[in-house]
Amino acid sequence: MSELRRDPIGGRWVIVDTDHPAKPEDFEHEPNVWKGGNCPFCPGSEALTPPEIEAFRDPSTRPNTPGWQVRVVSNKFPALQIEGELDRRGLGLYDMSNGIGAHEVLIDTPYHNKDIPDLLNHEIEQIITMSCRRSIDLFKDKRFKYILLFKNFGPAAGASLEHPHTQIIALPMVPKNAMEELKGCQNYFEYRERCIYCDMIKQELQDKERVIMENKYFLSFCPFVSRFPFEVRIIPKKHNSYYCHMHVDEVPELAAILKETIAKIKNVFASPAYNLMVHSAPVTNDDGIEYFHWHIEIMPKLTRVAGFEWGSGFYLVPTPPELAAKYLREK
Amino acid sequence: MSELRRDPIGGRWVIVDTDHPAKPEDFEHEPNVWKGGNCPFCPGSEALTPPEIEAFRDPSTRPNTPGWQVRVVSNKFPALQIEGELDRRGLGLYDMSNGIGAHEVLIDTPYHNKDIPDLLNHEIEQIITMSCRRSIDLFKDKRFKYILLFKNFGPAAGASLEHPHTQIIALPMVPKNAMEELKGCQNYFEYRERCIYCDMIKQELQDKERVIMENKYFLSFCPFVSRFPFEVRIIPKKHNSYYCHMHVDEVPELAAILKETIAKIKNVFASPAYNLMVHSAPVTNDDGIEYFHWHIEIMPKLTRVAGFEWGSGFYLVPTPPELAAKYLREK
Repeated sequence: MSELRRDPIGGRWVIVDTDHPAKPEDFEHEPNVWKGGNCPFCPGSEALTPPEIEAFRDPSTRPNTPGWQVRVVSNKFPALQIEGELDRRGLGLYDMSNGIGAHEVLIDTPYHNKDIPDLLNHEIEQIITMSCRRSIDLFKDKRFKYILLFKNFGPAAGASLEHPHTQIIALPMVPKNAMEELKGCQNYFEYRERCIYCDMIKQELQDKERVIMENKYFLSFCPFVSRFPFEVRIIPKKHNSYYCHMHVDEVPELAAILKETIAKIKNVFASPAYNLMVHSAPVTNDDGIEYFHWHIEIMPKLTRVAGFEWGSGFYLVPTPPELAAKYLREK
Repeated sequence: MSELRRDPIGGRWVIVDTDHPAKPEDFEHEPNVWKGGNCPFCPGSEALTPPEIEAFRDPSTRPNTPGWQVRVVSNKFPALQIEGELDRRGLGLYDMSNGIGAHEVLIDTPYHNKDIPDLLNHEIEQIITMSCRRSIDLFKDKRFKYILLFKNFGPAAGASLEHPHTQIIALPMVPKNAMEELKGCQNYFEYRERCIYCDMIKQELQDKERVIMENKYFLSFCPFVSRFPFEVRIIPKKHNSYYCHMHVDEVPELAAILKETIAKIKNVFASPAYNLMVHSAPVTNDDGIEYFHWHIEIMPKLTRVAGFEWGSGFYLVPTPPELAAKYLREK
């Protein structure tokens, strides 16, 4: 019989196929086939992107020329526009606003074909440091309530360009998923006076069966409840609600666990498309929120979402996370 | 500038690209390519499915033989199992249960290549009547709290078989999406003492710009807030919280509007994959819920869900529903 599992934070139920668990070879994922063409993110093509916002570059080079290691530009086709004041209004029973926000692209590396696992640790550290810097900068804009960092790798994961990059979107309202997660964490805290993610880390380290790997400051594991098979969570062991408030000592450890965890996913599945999302607390004036704990979700794109999932919010998880973690640990 | 819109029921915000709206030809959707092989849903292959639960068939024919127009069987690979008692239990901070439920397949038609728009109206009426009968039957099982009816058409929409079919899943708990929708409708009702969907029908019929078509008992329109471009909602004009309590006079009208609406989608997009979901109230002892109004959602599969959507619950809608409705109205 399959198993029903409930996410203790959002309350989502999922169906885990513990009866006939799917093995890695049971998934047919789409190959990452790209159209050719001039890549706007490669060194030498700097003029093809909007002007540089910030970069780590050879001090002898000028902005918008080669010589950078990590480069941030505005998205050429931004989902939201940075200029203007937020104007919320009603329309009969509906509610709307103009599309104010920020949409930046962090070009991870000058190398067109190097994703996280192919980079050196210090190169990944630069991506992390730059994404924290950009978040902190966007935090200062009083119009923004939430900063989302994410990465789409491969066309099946929604990436429109092959060159590895990360996106940063600043939103004028806290999105639904973040609100729900916050509320769930707050409910647990009110009841137990403890952070649910701190408790989860303890339980996962004790149970061991869902753990992929750990280092001094981070744990990577397959969550008890996920939406997708082989979904992975990377979480700092020390409580902290903001990604961008990460301690400088944590940066090399995060770079190391990110590199190894994504490498494991790519070893099991021959480089599948994947989405990576940072879950961090909304922008507040507080130094931190005691009930929220930032973390990273990585979702390899192996299955399709169908009517059952869209209609119910239930998800069918063909591989139990315990089995997924075992495959990933061993690769 | 793009536009932010808020779903008045679930509170979800979406970004609608009113600046550079995507036209139908801007979407590259996956072709519906199927592997060959013996179809277990075609007449003559009845032995390849689990035994028939119910069918509309020529009275001179026996169950599990050809001669049927609509045939219901258990899913051969059920997500949930019908036998047993529900056993909910904790596991440290997690919560789980055994996988009790029902998972039935309604084979829409004996014709392998006929989807809804290709069927005659009275054939579609039989699908509707049978799906209502199965829902009513599953309602009687006290273990079930929610019945979900849905249809996946095309591999990109998650269908695993080409032969048109509908699925019915009975769940032992009310799923997250249904809970949220109910809560949102209830909040509106408490404030206004009116059903939000009844108000929405009035507003849409008055605004006209999002309406695709209407007949005596039903309206089909592109909702003000959707997750996907060209998403369509079909709703009964008369308040009723349960799909399966539909009045017998409504059946032919629903068949007609379903056929025409899906035909329009297929005309605009050369038969894209799509998901269809019935939103109905959870199983209760009540005759109906005054604040909930059943309806159908149809989502053509034209775009990919990426990190932004998975991470935030925000959706980027490249075609404003007003423009989508215009294209659909004219086809």
